[in-house]
Amino acid sequence: MGLELTILGSNSARPAYGRFTTSQYLNVGSQAFLIDAGEGFQLQLNKFGLKPNRIQNIFISHLHGDHILGLPGFLNSLNLGGRTKPMTIYSPPGLKEWFTLFQELSTGHLSYPLEFIDLTSNSSQVVLQTEEIKVTAFPVEHRIPTYGFRFDESLKEFNIDPDKIKALDLTITEIKEIKSGMDIIREGKRIPFQDIVFPRKPSKSYAYCADTNYTDLFLDLIKNVDLLYHEATYLKDMTEQARERKHSTAEEAAKIATMARAKKLLIGHFSSRYKDLQPLLAEAKEIFQNTYLALDGDKHLI
Amino acid sequence: MGLELTILGSNSARPAYGRFTTSQYLNVGSQAFLIDAGEGFQLQLNKFGLKPNRIQNIFISHLHGDHILGLPGFLNSLNLGGRTKPMTIYSPPGLKEWFTLFQELSTGHLSYPLEFIDLTSNSSQVVLQTEEIKVTAFPVEHRIPTYGFRFDESLKEFNIDPDKIKALDLTITEIKEIKSGMDIIREGKRIPFQDIVFPRKPSKSYAYCADTNYTDLFLDLIKNVDLLYHEATYLKDMTEQARERKHSTAEEAAKIATMARAKKLLIGHFSSRYKDLQPLLAEAKEIFQNTYLALDGDKHLI
Repeated sequence: MGLELTILGSNSARPAYGRFTTSQYLNVGSQAFLIDAGEGFQLQLNKFGLKPNRIQNIFISHLHGDHILGLPGFLNSLNLGGRTKPMTIYSPPGLKEWFTLFQELSTGHLSYPLEFIDLTSNSSQVVLQTEEIKVTAFPVEHRIPTYGFRFDESLKEFNIDPDKIKALDLTITEIKEIKSGMDIIREGKRIPFQDIVFPRKPSKSYAYCADTNYTDLFLDLIKNVDLLYHEATYLKDMTEQARERKHSTAEEAAKIATMARAKKLLIGHFSSRYKDLQPLLAEAKEIFQNTYLALDGDKHLI
Repeated sequence: MGLELTILGSNSARPAYGRFTTSQYLNVGSQAFLIDAGEGFQLQLNKFGLKPNRIQNIFISHLHGDHILGLPGFLNSLNLGGRTKPMTIYSPPGLKEWFTLFQELSTGHLSYPLEFIDLTSNSSQVVLQTEEIKVTAFPVEHRIPTYGFRFDESLKEFNIDPDKIKALDLTITEIKEIKSGMDIIREGKRIPFQDIVFPRKPSKSYAYCADTNYTDLFLDLIKNVDLLYHEATYLKDMTEQARERKHSTAEEAAKIATMARAKKLLIGHFSSRYKDLQPLLAEAKEIFQNTYLALDGDKHLI
């Protein structure tokens, strides 16, 4: 099916130079995920022609304003649009309380079921698994509880070559076994399932790491991803500031991508001190050549 | 000094067709007022070249999302910019609690003093009076407690013609009296103060009425304003819906402007059902010719 990522916002702390704060839209087949929810991201969905109602799951890394302030307006707009499909939001605890208070003050209600799932684990955990996708949340290192997310396409059953079904006169049980990757035995001889099925497309993966200090804490969890988004708030001459605020530099994001053996790196969460982002890109590319800037509206086919 | 209004957003309920939700920026001399705070209005300030730090007072009509959701991000951004000037927010009760919870969840702090003043009165009240401006809040009729605001330039002291000071040999006490508009008596004869002072520019006024049902409840309070903003969510064929949702039609806004003897009418808070706003304008103009649409970025010198 393929994963397709659209950047809705990439700026840290507050919008600047037309760049919205952090938010991403990940198409995963029959639905879309929202990753973080910076102020006004619903305007970006509209601008980039993305369908709000495809979103069924929202993953919030942490409760700083630049990652959550677009949420109440968006949830409200879905209600006005008469949505009935359920919505689930994964985030560190507190979001439900804040949204509920807003609903009370504005005497709002929702036309669809809304569920908040609190992320509290100190280790990684699979928070969602469907036929299409598996989502793993893992703690990263920031000033308040913060999670990264890894998205892996679920492996589909193997497709059997119909000619082989005939030639081998396969039983229903054998077909089931082969589809799940098991060999079969005929006249005491093992026939490898690979000889009977079509080659399968590899599962694609995306890892989102923001906001986080430079750390190898979660390195094992983002290994070999096809696309890695790692925050790069500052240039390396601001490393001290990065440590203090628990952020990373462009060089550090590139080091993580290298160590993780990621195929491609996307950097974002740019400090408002940088109007021109090219120096950040150049700094990362020196370490990890296949780096791109996360720019509002850019699409990345994973 | 003159009042200058800039429309930051004019759409009701949710952003649509590039129109932001309700927010206005009113320049009143040495400072600016923000009237309502729709999602992402800080992006509009930036786009229209308006200075966030000129804002020292914020007037919130009511706590529906389309009038408050831009507030947390804006207050946060001022902090990031190192603001030290105090900020005061006037609104129906609840906003402080909601913002405080957000600050707790995001462990945020502010670099400047922030005061929330709750509007609870059932009648009109002067909520702010400076040398430049007087602000009166008054209840309007909506689904939740909602206030309109009237802004009147404060009348300056009269300026005395210096030639007259000499010719009449005015005393310090007489000068004070004339400046405040009192006549003086010379040899038993009254000299009208108008003969001694320069003509004074009339005080300009602006009234903001949103969101509100069509009602004459506050008509006396918006009499003779130079500019009246009145919500016009629907066309008149939606009058039933307007009554039910406690909103007004374009025709009704125009009737209010006529009855209030306003000099100019600005209509806004457009339903997302209207992509083209010209029918709303035409409907209002049939009753009140001097009507304008509140369009994002438009400026009105009052």
